[in-house]
Amino acid sequence: MVKYPNGLNKKVIQTTTKTFANRGMNLEFLINQSNEYYLDLDIANIHKKPTPITIVNVDYPSRNKAKITEAYFKTPSTTDYNGVYKSRAIDFEAKDCNSNTSFPLKSIHEHQIKHLKSVLHHGAIAFVLLRFNKFDEVYYIDAKLVIEFYYKPERKSLSYKWVKENGYLIPLTYNPPINYIKVIDKLYFEEELWVLIKK
Amino acid sequence: MVKYPNGLNKKVIQTTTKTFANRGMNLEFLINQSNEYYLDLDIANIHKKPTPITIVNVDYPSRNKAKITEAYFKTPSTTDYNGVYKSRAIDFEAKDCNSNTSFPLKSIHEHQIKHLKSVLHHGAIAFVLLRFNKFDEVYYIDAKLVIEFYYKPERKSLSYKWVKENGYLIPLTYNPPINYIKVIDKLYFEEELWVLIKK
Repeated sequence: MVKYPNGLNKKVIQTTTKTFANRGMNLEFLINQSNEYYLDLDIANIHKKPTPITIVNVDYPSRNKAKITEAYFKTPSTTDYNGVYKSRAIDFEAKDCNSNTSFPLKSIHEHQIKHLKSVLHHGAIAFVLLRFNKFDEVYYIDAKLVIEFYYKPERKSLSYKWVKENGYLIPLTYNPPINYIKVIDKLYFEEELWVLIKK
Repeated sequence: MVKYPNGLNKKVIQTTTKTFANRGMNLEFLINQSNEYYLDLDIANIHKKPTPITIVNVDYPSRNKAKITEAYFKTPSTTDYNGVYKSRAIDFEAKDCNSNTSFPLKSIHEHQIKHLKSVLHHGAIAFVLLRFNKFDEVYYIDAKLVIEFYYKPERKSLSYKWVKENGYLIPLTYNPPINYIKVIDKLYFEEELWVLIKK
């Protein structure tokens, strides 16, 4: 372990560097990495669902290897991520946004909104993880709020200001990169009121 | 409505016929149909996960249509079905069996067993739906029992006798064709003891 003049050891410095390295990284990759961390440490079991496709043709060039030669992407009828944490069903969609002022709601399919509404109704912990890429900030937004907004007649997009006020900024760390379970803990499993983390 | 001499109307007769028509039908199809029923009637939100594949090549013959021209099936790392019912996470695997004496455990991948173990640990309601095709009987088997059996040194298969003794026979009806929520209700959401349905 290399010692640095200010007393920090290399590991700490690396951690900091890695945090900033998340910037620009694929959101799905970071969530998958977080889910792997939760799985490995026996914290939660949450997975990304495979991409839904319609398979039209499969070849069998060798006995054990099936090769799909024609398939098409299907519009997803559910969200991308779900699983279990402390007995509760977890269900969420993740989106990133290149604008630094607002997130266009048309990026979420209506059947995904319907799905979120349904899982909420059945008692799942449901939310949207929204990243503003330019700020490298990921927000946890309760599905209920997104659904309400979605069905407003004038709805078009969630402004950055609205997200800051209504969402929860997720602490970005080395591992897990996007620690959204921390927000779930505060919202659902801790009795004391949570002081929102504001920048 | 056609009236029959014995007083039954056509609808009832059709229902009975349809029940028998389940015999030989694809298990996945019947479970999907049951899940659709649960979804439509706002009973539960449970879906089959898409088949996991690795996409190697995608063509874009026209602007909006992406065509996958090379992809391969991946070994699934989770079970096929999951969702939410009465706030609880639901997770299960479905298998059918052509033998009328036993179900070979090697039909379940070890990582699926590990997955069931993990979701159980996190508090999900986890189970295996096993159909003996020859008898047209579908059993609900608690994941805990399947896992225990799986790790026994002498384990090879679950005998039909064992399944009858340790599983719950699921009532097969017209709609939902495989009413497994009924078993979950009895096991998790009703206080009174359930008298097992035995043939």
